[in-house]
Amino acid sequence: MTELINKAKRAKTASQKLNQCTTKQKNDALHCISQALQNQASFIIGENLKDLELGKANGLNESLLDRLMLNETRIKAMATALEQLIALKDPTGQVLESWQRPNELTINKVSVPLGVIGMIYEARPNVTVDAASLCLKTGNAVMLRGSSSAHHSNCALLKVIHDGLKQSALPVDAVQLIEDTRRETAQAMFQLKDYLDVLIPRGGKQLIQTVVEQANVPVLETGAGNCHVYIDETADPELAISITINAKTQRPSVCNAIETVLIHEKWAKHQVEHLINTLIDHGVELRADHMIRALDVRLQPATEEDWETEYLDHILALKQVANVEEAVEHINQYGTKHSEAIISETKAHVDYFYQNVDAAAVYHNASTRFTDGFEFGFGAEIGISTQKLHARGPMGLSALTTTKYLIAGTGQIRE
Amino acid sequence: MTELINKAKRAKTASQKLNQCTTKQKNDALHCISQALQNQASFIIGENLKDLELGKANGLNESLLDRLMLNETRIKAMATALEQLIALKDPTGQVLESWQRPNELTINKVSVPLGVIGMIYEARPNVTVDAASLCLKTGNAVMLRGSSSAHHSNCALLKVIHDGLKQSALPVDAVQLIEDTRRETAQAMFQLKDYLDVLIPRGGKQLIQTVVEQANVPVLETGAGNCHVYIDETADPELAISITINAKTQRPSVCNAIETVLIHEKWAKHQVEHLINTLIDHGVELRADHMIRALDVRLQPATEEDWETEYLDHILALKQVANVEEAVEHINQYGTKHSEAIISETKAHVDYFYQNVDAAAVYHNASTRFTDGFEFGFGAEIGISTQKLHARGPMGLSALTTTKYLIAGTGQIRE
Repeated sequence: MTELINKAKRAKTASQKLNQCTTKQKNDALHCISQALQNQASFIIGENLKDLELGKANGLNESLLDRLMLNETRIKAMATALEQLIALKDPTGQVLESWQRPNELTINKVSVPLGVIGMIYEARPNVTVDAASLCLKTGNAVMLRGSSSAHHSNCALLKVIHDGLKQSALPVDAVQLIEDTRRETAQAMFQLKDYLDVLIPRGGKQLIQTVVEQANVPVLETGAGNCHVYIDETADPELAISITINAKTQRPSVCNAIETVLIHEKWAKHQVEHLINTLIDHGVELRADHMIRALDVRLQPATEEDWETEYLDHILALKQVANVEEAVEHINQYGTKHSEAIISETKAHVDYFYQNVDAAAVYHNASTRFTDGFEFGFGAEIGISTQKLHARGPMGLSALTTTKYLIAGTGQIRE
Repeated sequence: MTELINKAKRAKTASQKLNQCTTKQKNDALHCISQALQNQASFIIGENLKDLELGKANGLNESLLDRLMLNETRIKAMATALEQLIALKDPTGQVLESWQRPNELTINKVSVPLGVIGMIYEARPNVTVDAASLCLKTGNAVMLRGSSSAHHSNCALLKVIHDGLKQSALPVDAVQLIEDTRRETAQAMFQLKDYLDVLIPRGGKQLIQTVVEQANVPVLETGAGNCHVYIDETADPELAISITINAKTQRPSVCNAIETVLIHEKWAKHQVEHLINTLIDHGVELRADHMIRALDVRLQPATEEDWETEYLDHILALKQVANVEEAVEHINQYGTKHSEAIISETKAHVDYFYQNVDAAAVYHNASTRFTDGFEFGFGAEIGISTQKLHARGPMGLSALTTTKYLIAGTGQIRE
C-alpha cells in the first residue's frame, strides 16, 4: 500500500504543476511520447512477448491473446493517435460563461482539469498509452492500474512514456503506473478520495460493477449496452433490414451493437420473414417470443433472460409489440440506457420514441453503431458513459474537465 | 424494505409520466402546492407541534428546535418560494448543441430530467417542500428521506404536496416520502441503483460521508467548507479587514464562511494589530501560529487540527505566510475545494491564486459568502457541490438535468 500512497501523492503534486503548463507544452510532450514509442518499438515488443508467453502458459484464449499483442503496426497506430490528439483543441482554460451581478461582482466560469484521474482497465496494453495521453492533453495527472496479464507490456510502455515526458516541460510524475497488481491494491485505490478526483473503469461488466460498489471516489461509469432496434408499422423494409443487420453484425462484440429487435405486429406480418432470412444468412442465431414464432416456427423461444442479456455475439432476440408505447416500455424496462433506434416513417411515433426512451443516444432511421466519440466528431473518446451525471453517451476530451468560478470584486461584502 | 421498493417503483413510473408534462403543467402544479400549503397551514403547524414536543422531551437543543419549528411566517415563505420558482426558466427540453456529420446524421444534444432523485436530509422540514418543488420544476420524481425528529411535520407536508398534485396534471407519485426512518432503510435506499439516478444528501459532514461511503447510486456531494481569506502584501487594509469580518461573522454557521486567514508577513507587520482588534471587537476567538503570536502575545496557539477544522462558529485561525505560493499551498492542503479569497492589489499574485487554488469558487477582493445559488443569480439552489463531477459550486436548476443525444438519420449504417 505504501507504493500506492506514494504514487498518489506524487500524482497530486504533479497535477498542480501540470495545471501551470501551456497547451503548447502539453502538445510538445505528446509529440515526445509519440517519438519515444516509435524509437523504442522493439523494446516494447520484447517485453510484450513475455506477457504473451505467460498468457499462453496460463491458457488465455486466442481472442484475449490478440488483445494483449503489440506489434510494429499497433505501436505505430498508438504513435499516430498521439499526433492526432495534438491537433485537437485543448478543452481547458476556456471561459465558458461570464456575467456581472447587480453588486458588480464579475463571475467567470472557466474550464479546468479534473486533477488526478484513476484508470482501471483490463488486458489491452494500448489503453495505457491512450488513457495517459488523453489525461495529459487535458492537464490531468493519471494513476493507471492495468491487469497482471499485461504487466510487462504496461511497465515497458510506462518507461517509454516517462522517457518522452523527461524531454518535455511536463512533470514525469504526471503518469503513474500501479505495478502491484494484487486485488487488494485495486480495492485500496478505489478508496483514495484524498488523492483521486475521479475513477474511470474500462473493461467488462464485472470490473465496472466492482468499482461502482466499492469506490468512495466518484466514478465515471461506462460500458454495458443492451441496445434495441424498434421497427415501427411504417418502417421502410429495406432500411429496417439494412440497419438491423448493421447494428447486429458489423461488430457484435461492442457495447453499441444491438441485442433485441422489437417489431410492430403489422410490419411483422408482412416483412418479418425477409428480416429473419437475411439475419440467418448473416450467421445470426435467433430467439423469438411466441408471436414471432407463430410466424416462423424454425426459431428458438426467447426467455425473460434473453431480454436482459447483452450477448456481444451473433445472437439476437426478436419480440413483437402492438405499438410504439409497448416498444418504449420494453426498452425502458430492459435497456441499459445506452443506444436505442426507431425505424419509422411516422413523425408522431418518432417524437414519442425520442421523448420517452431513457437512453444516452436515441436514433431515428440510423444504426446504433454510431454511438462513438469519433463518429460523433469529438476526435477522441474516453469511453461511453451509461450514467447520467457529468457526461452521458460518448465522452470526448471535455469529459476530463471540470469548472471553476473566478470572481472579481472591488471589496464586495454580503449584507 | 417492501415500502421502500414499492415507493421506488412508483417514483420511477411517475418520472416517466412527468417527462411528458409541459412546463405550464409543472408550473401549475407548483402553484397548486403553494395554495395547499397556505390553506392547510394550521394542520401543518399542529403536526409540527408534535415533533417539537417530542424534540423537547428528547432534549433537543434550542438551535435544533428552531430549525424544526414551522409557523405561519415560515409556511408563507415556503409558499412564496414556490411562486418564485414558477417564474424561473425550465432548464429541460432545450437543444444545447446541434450539428451535422459528414454522413448527414444530425445530432442534437438536448437537456432532460435526471429521472428519480433521492434526497436524504436532516431536521429542517422546509427541505421537504424545497427539494420536492425543485425536482418537480425540473421534471424529476423524488424520494425524500427526512429525519425521525421531523416525522410528523414531513408526513403533513407530504399530504399537502399530494393534495396540491391531485389538482394538477402531474402524477401524485412523483413525490414519495420514506416514512420508515430506521437507519437500515436509509442504507437500503443508498443501494437503489435500479430506481434512483442520483442521491443528494443535505446535512452535516457525517451524513454526507456515510452516503458517499455506502451508496452505489451516484452522489452529488455538497457541504463541507474549510474556506480561507489570503491577505497579500499589497492588500488594501480597510478592504482586507472588511472582507475578513464579513466572511467570518456575517453568518458563521454556513459552509461559505471562512475558518482561517493567511497573512503575508509584510502586511502582518504593519496591519495585523488592527485586524486582530477588529475581530476581537466582533466577538471572534482567535488562534494563531507562532509568527502571528510573536506580533500579538494575547492570542492562543493554533495547532495542526485548527488548520483542518471547519469551526462553523465565532472562531478563526490566523497564519503568517511568506508569499502567495505558500498561501496557495496551505489552501490546497487543508481546504475543502469550496470558496477561497485573495485580497491583493498585485495582478500577478491574483492570477497565480486564480490559476492554482483548487476550489469551486475563487474570489479576488470579495467575501467568500457570495458562494450561493441566489447570489450567483441562479434563482434557486439545490446545494453547493464540493465535488468536481457534474456540477461544481452553487447548483441551480440545471444541476438536476442531464442530456440525451437525439440523432436523425436517413438510413445511415456504419461501414
